[in-house]
Amino acid sequence: MTEPLRVALAGLGTVGAGVVRLLETNGELIARRAGRPIEVVAVSARDRSKDRGIDISGFDWVDDPAELARHPKADVIVELVGGSDGPALALARAALGAGKNFVTANKAMVAHHGLELARAAESAGVALKYEAAVAGGIPVIKGLREGAAANAIDSVYGILNGTCNFILSKMEAEGRDFDDILSEAQALGYAEADPSFDIDGIDAAHKLSILASLAFGAKPSFDDVVITGVRHVIAADIAEAASLGYRIRLLGIADASGGGLMQRVHPYLVPMDHPMAHVLSSTNAVVAEGNFVGRLFFQGAGAGDGPTASAVVADLIDIARGEFGPPYAMPVDSLAAMAPADTGERRGRDYLRFTVADKVGVLAEIAAAMRDAGVSIESLMQRGAMPDGSVLVAIVTHEGPERCVAAALEKLRGSPSLVGEPMWMHILEN
Amino acid sequence: MTEPLRVALAGLGTVGAGVVRLLETNGELIARRAGRPIEVVAVSARDRSKDRGIDISGFDWVDDPAELARHPKADVIVELVGGSDGPALALARAALGAGKNFVTANKAMVAHHGLELARAAESAGVALKYEAAVAGGIPVIKGLREGAAANAIDSVYGILNGTCNFILSKMEAEGRDFDDILSEAQALGYAEADPSFDIDGIDAAHKLSILASLAFGAKPSFDDVVITGVRHVIAADIAEAASLGYRIRLLGIADASGGGLMQRVHPYLVPMDHPMAHVLSSTNAVVAEGNFVGRLFFQGAGAGDGPTASAVVADLIDIARGEFGPPYAMPVDSLAAMAPADTGERRGRDYLRFTVADKVGVLAEIAAAMRDAGVSIESLMQRGAMPDGSVLVAIVTHEGPERCVAAALEKLRGSPSLVGEPMWMHILEN
Repeated sequence: MTEPLRVALAGLGTVGAGVVRLLETNGELIARRAGRPIEVVAVSARDRSKDRGIDISGFDWVDDPAELARHPKADVIVELVGGSDGPALALARAALGAGKNFVTANKAMVAHHGLELARAAESAGVALKYEAAVAGGIPVIKGLREGAAANAIDSVYGILNGTCNFILSKMEAEGRDFDDILSEAQALGYAEADPSFDIDGIDAAHKLSILASLAFGAKPSFDDVVITGVRHVIAADIAEAASLGYRIRLLGIADASGGGLMQRVHPYLVPMDHPMAHVLSSTNAVVAEGNFVGRLFFQGAGAGDGPTASAVVADLIDIARGEFGPPYAMPVDSLAAMAPADTGERRGRDYLRFTVADKVGVLAEIAAAMRDAGVSIESLMQRGAMPDGSVLVAIVTHEGPERCVAAALEKLRGSPSLVGEPMWMHILEN
Repeated sequence: MTEPLRVALAGLGTVGAGVVRLLETNGELIARRAGRPIEVVAVSARDRSKDRGIDISGFDWVDDPAELARHPKADVIVELVGGSDGPALALARAALGAGKNFVTANKAMVAHHGLELARAAESAGVALKYEAAVAGGIPVIKGLREGAAANAIDSVYGILNGTCNFILSKMEAEGRDFDDILSEAQALGYAEADPSFDIDGIDAAHKLSILASLAFGAKPSFDDVVITGVRHVIAADIAEAASLGYRIRLLGIADASGGGLMQRVHPYLVPMDHPMAHVLSSTNAVVAEGNFVGRLFFQGAGAGDGPTASAVVADLIDIARGEFGPPYAMPVDSLAAMAPADTGERRGRDYLRFTVADKVGVLAEIAAAMRDAGVSIESLMQRGAMPDGSVLVAIVTHEGPERCVAAALEKLRGSPSLVGEPMWMHILEN
């Protein structure tokens, strides 16, 4: 057997400890598959004495994670510290600068600094790998980079945030409202004390922009992702959607089929005969639509120590085998700078929900705004009064350009008939 | 840009023509992703003058496919001829013997001769790749070989034959019987004139044995696959299953969790909350259960020129990038010879359907046979007389060992109360 691949590991939270445990548990098997053993030689974390359920006494301890980049024995640095900048970025720059292979699970850092880091990896001739940054254990980076590599990709989209899918699935199953489920999820540790990154769609947007770069050979442009989270989905939306044959899912969608690059994270109505509708609880899933392969669908655990460690070690195995290429599947200079698409021109069907005052003429006002903006209504449901006396009006439009719907909502803005903001969700076509 | 990867292609049926078309259509993109162009230099097929909708005038024409192995310009030979032996195997041996990389979509050949060919590839230091042999366009070979490489795999299973899934989905949607749908599928060209390879489970078994080798690092053992097809599933089975919350799917299942290797292709009852239940029509899907990643689920088109060409060209891109390793993910000598598992010891729930004569005492006879064999009954449904006067009795067992069910059926064998053979299907647990 040849020399082992030697790993220095920054961050010993649940994922870091999971990587150590995985390499111990499956070590013999991994050595057979990788052609050589993979062993941890050094670690860095905040607290040396914390009990993590793993034995770290055999590893060199380094206080400053950035020091790992200069560890003489390490062939590859694994970064599991997190955060788009700060110590994670410092370590990434130091590692690639020192000509070390680099593996990370850090979606925020890759979304914001991926291009710079890919350039550094390229000029050093080393690996920059980040399978664990998107959709946890699902090998979707590999699926796009290699599995679907023969295809021009029309669109890539997915359920990229487990917390949101957990909340939406539970709202649906139990008929309860968002805040109620969020509190429960926080109490159970399924949602962060500050859940904004998850429920406002930022986390999904980080992952989406990474997928979009790979799928379309495009320069990363996280700032162009248009983001709405799930905060404003109410139980009644889910019930209305169900009555129409849909489930609500927070999707990240990137589409390059219409000229320009559309990147958006929004709650969508997903038809029941689409596989995304059957992705439950905190499971993640990704679809890639290729011009020859058609629809590829990948599903699995999007987070957790085991699945994320599985993805990190898959990257290490690729490095051990010497099977890695450019981080974005092609050299950085081949990546295209794609302008954001004009979403106003996107044609599709939409769901609109208004909470309105229970008085004469409100329906006429809404219908007139739709008509004047050129929005054709496929169905309209008005439900009896809510506890506070307001009324729900839910509309599904015929297919048309988004700018018309936006114009209709603009007309209605500030109308005294409306109680609160209208809810606008796109409908995913199967 | 470096030298192109030069391809000699044997077989210009729908898939072969699809590969030529794909390389033309996406050629520029593929060159960017692969780091160099991929071009066809020579082809071989039965009929030179047939109109395939592609221009082959720029390729060298070779009458005998085995001659392609000696084509001076070819870096890689692609075999799309089919058949486990004959010209396909002759070409494979010649190509690997001549030190050429080899790509194939031929599941029968890989299932029967994979070990020999892998050994030849290994000693020549060239690639043997076969992504297209299993589940068409879905990158499931890559998913197991690389994506899930960090895991010990407990089980791998899937919907591996599109024709069977098309028939079962249509039986379910339309309440019609098997023969009826099969005739229609044949008329539409969705099923072969001789459909036996598909509907009797042989095709799925070929694919399953390939997946099992990769997943478990086991020597291929196609002869150990226990196979039942879908011929004996009747509309009433599908209706009974639906009333219990299941759909019937032909699954290939390989499991190494209980000591020994279980490989079987049977129709299963799949619970509605399992993603396999939502795989419709001719779509394929594969699950791998890993000890760290949990359940990975891959779904996509299992056949057709576009998807299959996509998988063939993905293999070519890996070769162009120099990113390929041992065909079974580890050297042939590292593969374990695994004995077949004793399925009698498998514990699970089962579905049994008897067609019986409508007379006194039949139910008692069946119930007594179950009791005497130690089979515990969870539910039993008896449905009114069929047009021919016979009666259906459907049973779902509690969890227990399979040998007890086998013993109960053995007791009932030849009973004059039974009209035709009983139907026995396992229930997939979620």
